[in-house]
Amino acid sequence: MTGFEEIMKRRNHKAFVLGILFTFFGWSFAFSQAPQSEGTWIWYPGDYEIWLSNKMQARRTERGAFLPPLWRYYSPYPMVTFRKEVDIPSEDNILLVTDGQFKLQIDGELVHGKPDTIALSAGKHQLAIKVYNQETLPSLFLQGEHVQSDASWEVTYEDKEWIDETGQASDQSGTLWERVGYWNFDSPEKVPSEFALEVEPAPAVEREELSNGELIDFGKETFGYLVFHGLKGEGKIRVFYGESEEEAMDKEYCETLDELEVSYSEATTDTLAQSMAFRYVQVERQAEVSYDSVSMLYEFLPLDYKGSFSSSDDLLNEIWDVSAYTLHLNTREFFLDGIKRDRWIWSGDAYQSYLMNYYLFFDNPSVTRTLLALRGKDPISSHLNTIMDYSFYWFIGIYDYYLFTGDEEFIHQFYPRMVSLMDFCLERRNENGMMEGLPGDWVFIDWADGLKKEGEVSFQQLLLARSLEAMALSAGIVGDRDGEANYTAMAEQLREKLFDVFWSSEHQALMHHRVDGEVKEEVTRYANMFAIFFDYLSKDQQEAVKTHVLLNDEVQKITTPYMRFYELEALCALGEQELVLDEIREYWGGMLELGATSFWEKYDPKESGEEHLAMYGRPYGKSLCHAWGASPIYLFGKYYFGVSPSSPGYDTYMVEPNLGGLEWMEGSVPTPEGEITLFCSTSEIKIKADHGVGTLRIKSETPPKGSNMEFKKVEDSTYELVVKPGQTYELHYKAMQ
Amino acid sequence: MTGFEEIMKRRNHKAFVLGILFTFFGWSFAFSQAPQSEGTWIWYPGDYEIWLSNKMQARRTERGAFLPPLWRYYSPYPMVTFRKEVDIPSEDNILLVTDGQFKLQIDGELVHGKPDTIALSAGKHQLAIKVYNQETLPSLFLQGEHVQSDASWEVTYEDKEWIDETGQASDQSGTLWERVGYWNFDSPEKVPSEFALEVEPAPAVEREELSNGELIDFGKETFGYLVFHGLKGEGKIRVFYGESEEEAMDKEYCETLDELEVSYSEATTDTLAQSMAFRYVQVERQAEVSYDSVSMLYEFLPLDYKGSFSSSDDLLNEIWDVSAYTLHLNTREFFLDGIKRDRWIWSGDAYQSYLMNYYLFFDNPSVTRTLLALRGKDPISSHLNTIMDYSFYWFIGIYDYYLFTGDEEFIHQFYPRMVSLMDFCLERRNENGMMEGLPGDWVFIDWADGLKKEGEVSFQQLLLARSLEAMALSAGIVGDRDGEANYTAMAEQLREKLFDVFWSSEHQALMHHRVDGEVKEEVTRYANMFAIFFDYLSKDQQEAVKTHVLLNDEVQKITTPYMRFYELEALCALGEQELVLDEIREYWGGMLELGATSFWEKYDPKESGEEHLAMYGRPYGKSLCHAWGASPIYLFGKYYFGVSPSSPGYDTYMVEPNLGGLEWMEGSVPTPEGEITLFCSTSEIKIKADHGVGTLRIKSETPPKGSNMEFKKVEDSTYELVVKPGQTYELHYKAMQ
Repeated sequence: MTGFEEIMKRRNHKAFVLGILFTFFGWSFAFSQAPQSEGTWIWYPGDYEIWLSNKMQARRTERGAFLPPLWRYYSPYPMVTFRKEVDIPSEDNILLVTDGQFKLQIDGELVHGKPDTIALSAGKHQLAIKVYNQETLPSLFLQGEHVQSDASWEVTYEDKEWIDETGQASDQSGTLWERVGYWNFDSPEKVPSEFALEVEPAPAVEREELSNGELIDFGKETFGYLVFHGLKGEGKIRVFYGESEEEAMDKEYCETLDELEVSYSEATTDTLAQSMAFRYVQVERQAEVSYDSVSMLYEFLPLDYKGSFSSSDDLLNEIWDVSAYTLHLNTREFFLDGIKRDRWIWSGDAYQSYLMNYYLFFDNPSVTRTLLALRGKDPISSHLNTIMDYSFYWFIGIYDYYLFTGDEEFIHQFYPRMVSLMDFCLERRNENGMMEGLPGDWVFIDWADGLKKEGEVSFQQLLLARSLEAMALSAGIVGDRDGEANYTAMAEQLREKLFDVFWSSEHQALMHHRVDGEVKEEVTRYANMFAIFFDYLSKDQQEAVKTHVLLNDEVQKITTPYMRFYELEALCALGEQELVLDEIREYWGGMLELGATSFWEKYDPKESGEEHLAMYGRPYGKSLCHAWGASPIYLFGKYYFGVSPSSPGYDTYMVEPNLGGLEWMEGSVPTPEGEITLFCSTSEIKIKADHGVGTLRIKSETPPKGSNMEFKKVEDSTYELVVKPGQTYELHYKAMQ
Repeated sequence: MTGFEEIMKRRNHKAFVLGILFTFFGWSFAFSQAPQSEGTWIWYPGDYEIWLSNKMQARRTERGAFLPPLWRYYSPYPMVTFRKEVDIPSEDNILLVTDGQFKLQIDGELVHGKPDTIALSAGKHQLAIKVYNQETLPSLFLQGEHVQSDASWEVTYEDKEWIDETGQASDQSGTLWERVGYWNFDSPEKVPSEFALEVEPAPAVEREELSNGELIDFGKETFGYLVFHGLKGEGKIRVFYGESEEEAMDKEYCETLDELEVSYSEATTDTLAQSMAFRYVQVERQAEVSYDSVSMLYEFLPLDYKGSFSSSDDLLNEIWDVSAYTLHLNTREFFLDGIKRDRWIWSGDAYQSYLMNYYLFFDNPSVTRTLLALRGKDPISSHLNTIMDYSFYWFIGIYDYYLFTGDEEFIHQFYPRMVSLMDFCLERRNENGMMEGLPGDWVFIDWADGLKKEGEVSFQQLLLARSLEAMALSAGIVGDRDGEANYTAMAEQLREKLFDVFWSSEHQALMHHRVDGEVKEEVTRYANMFAIFFDYLSKDQQEAVKTHVLLNDEVQKITTPYMRFYELEALCALGEQELVLDEIREYWGGMLELGATSFWEKYDPKESGEEHLAMYGRPYGKSLCHAWGASPIYLFGKYYFGVSPSSPGYDTYMVEPNLGGLEWMEGSVPTPEGEITLFCSTSEIKIKADHGVGTLRIKSETPPKGSNMEFKKVEDSTYELVVKPGQTYELHYKAMQ
């Protein structure tokens, strides 16, 4: 049974349980449960995310030039209609606020003028509110005693109201109504289109005088708005940002810069309009301009650090802390890949952030916002970010999202967009039913010299197979039985074909690609390592791949932290925790040793000095704060604490601690309804979980012991304990050497 | 040979001629000829029209309530890339202006900063300019010595620039590039998104004091902004508009109203923000507010009245003048149906305006703007305006547009949108290959009591057949040979089926509809009259239809001017000009007698007093200025002057004057490159044309005579004269009694 089959089995069990609940609570139980009883701003699902991501991604600049994404932008629907039928026990006077012009109909009757409240008598009423906003986003907020705008409302962009002979709307048949989108805009003043990240003041740490300006150090990588205090005079201030001191001091080549026209007769505080990523700033001012000091407004998405990690190794603890900060800096309106240069949303990069998020913030909206921004609208004319693999990561991201969070509402709402993106992908298969790059497709895989991308690349087929599994799972959730059967069958066939074509008993590995019907003599790590944690390999194949690929120096090495993420994951999945810890100490520890305050896009211990700053042929092209640099968060949570969900939303889960050579470790992993806290040393384990039923699986030289605990021996030296919610378990054992 | 076959034949001839020209001038001759050598603002084709129509249609109000369209709104693409490869003889410094943020690449290299000129050296260069504008419309203006933004530029919304290992864009394969859209924004200051109609001051004609205000008469139906002069004090002014005095005086039921909060300590001139249609205005002011006088700013689209008409009948002359004013008031950002109430764009109504336009303004952009606004974007989820017939009028409108203007560029550019709308229609056919209303379809036909709309309505099949002919013609123009063959075959089959199923030899007419396989015993005028001017009937059938349908009082009468347009056209096409003139005198003359200063949405001579103002169950629901009320313009030009194109763009044309009992008539009909002027009395005809080769066909009791003229007798008492451009022909004849 592959991991997929396991999830499907467990999901069906859950669906059965929900099915029983339906009988009691009715259809609305599953996905119309409002998230709050107070009103919240609502909109057409996905449109806010598209709008906000357009805005955010358009903030990328390169040396003052606007540098928006290279792929298609979508738009919100400029006019939508919200509706709900309400039945209220007593009269209600409902506050009505819209972002845009609105048309209000109560029980089919147009209300004249521009009312700011809706007066309803007791009983049943049909409310329909059409909102038009070409500039930002049509959205609606209602707050009454009995009626409020919330997840239970429906919305359409294609209203087909008909007019009868008397000029009245008489029919709406054929119109597609959908559940509204919403986030956390829970008051009338909190208008979605006015969203801004939070800011808080932060001082400079050091200043160094320069001939006509100064160099300012904020002490660590940060993101925000520069603030000039006591600004006075007439003239120009130029600002050169740097993630490194070298970059800030290099006016010709620093990646980002800004300028400010000053014209103040009295000393004034002025804040730059554009927020930037930096640690250092060089300020150059014209002689006629003066100021007292420079500080900044640190700009961030407010998030709780729900996961935690500490251990007997201080270096690892620091790595975890800096990883957490790195991920936080990159978790903004959406999951960014890097904060200095890019500021776009990349599906492949975001996919890694989703996984890290489950072990740090467990913030569902950050995942769904990013998924929706990436997906855009129909019709689709290219892969996400134009990259074939990135379309697949989108599906796999939904698979994981459901597994970690159990959120079926998201899948119910966006299943049609999953189907249309999958249709787009499936239509691009070749005559063998495999994906192969067509004009307009970017077959990416990884940044690696000489990587072959022509023909049928095994890695892409593997991702498609997993994507089809995500589709099958989702089809099941929404009750699309035909879809479920089709996608399941397609996934199975493709998995089979993948091994038929690419598995080489000679190389004991999946081969890299087939060109014009011929499988090439080339092994790479990509498909092999993904096959491990997708659970597509037999035990024997796993061991073979470990020896012949992962631990084989003759197979081209992975140099990007992007793919390093998966390589380390694969090694962990094969029990190589100790080896991986050494890698982490060397790679991430290496960056810390060089003074990193956030983790980089790439690190090569063989480089030195300013070489560390260069990339893409530019002296400061490298991002020194890159989301994928934060992967230890994921690895520690999933493969050292060993915590992962076995059924959607952590209703059941596994805890398989692995010290990887540490004396002890402790911390917590967030779950949808709380957390799992764990302490683990070579002789003692403490665990407590707020929700779900866990299985603690440990390897011990001696049978583990704890009061009132029943251990089940599952194989030699391997024991399992059922972990029930709200109970603390303390046990003694003897870790294997 | 049907009219369609005739056009196809002539078009193929023209294509052949163009084909020869190609040899000399190359491919660009046909559709890349820039409309000007100076720069003009450019955008993604159709997007400006969508954006502007959203804005315009959102200006409809009903008693102060916002009342936007009931159908789907589309949006411009918020980010597009413009490109052109230029080859310039000497260096150029090109002014660069964008509406939105921009990214400039010269020869693939990003230009840093925010330049306002592009410096190019002599030689070949690739220019690529990406523009982002979420709020209005991404658009571009360039003006250099050798390089400017014009029709020759290309644009895409789905840029698939790839990034290579060094971070540079390296490939754009797969991206769909299209020709840009443009209109008449020919200077950098004339930003498309700042477009406004022109205004000019107009005084009130009469004022009548009321207890706390006054009633103002502007003398005739008009459209614009009220202006208060010498406004002073604190308080509110309320304004009640009326197309009639009764409406303006009825504060409870007038259709439109406005109010103004006044707070001026010194006398000020203030203009209302919203322009409205009205003749009368009731102003009500609070005691604390005073003003000197009220005038208005008349708001209009500047257009030349290129067509003209006068005759021996002063009533008809006045009818033509009021028709022209009525059409002008309704020809604004787009062709409106009516100016007071509706202010939306309806495909069926606009279709009639297109036809009238060819005999008055001959303003191509007004037609194409309206066609593009109606069409919107893909994917399509409903018929235009949700009405089945209105999708068909869109195709037929393009057919006519090409015939009158010869503009192939439009068809080249929008053929893909024709195909996708036609696909949408064809997919909605039933198992008999016929159109039948599905959920979400509004089968409209006409406002008429008891009109049957279920099943297969013959009228809809007829419109689809003509639409397929429009597709075949367009497919031929763009060189889609398969499409041309398919659409031609489909049109032929449908025409055949139409007559097989619906032609009744018993009723000597096309029957109204078939329900569940049974043709119902019901004859209506719709399909029969359209079949006449679509030229689908044999001579015998024409005569039969005239007797058994058009002149048969037992067939339900047409009461709306909307369908009256076609009924009168059909009668004219059958030579009943004299009868039709009587109808015009009675119907349009009747409105004038009641004091109309523009023609109405509907007129029933049996009604009296305020009954004339009511419609849709509302006392002032009727529009007193409705585009379709202007149809005499079309009828006079096409069926009395008898001027119509025989091949696209008036390269060849017919002139078949018919006095319909008048002593004389004279005037002009505009053509793409000038006009055709005509004088015709019972004994004399003068004609002159600027372009093309015309055939003057006259009926005369005696052989016509003129110096140096050769007449060809084509049948009894019917003579033809070839009319060459630039020459005045004066001839004598004897009109048939």
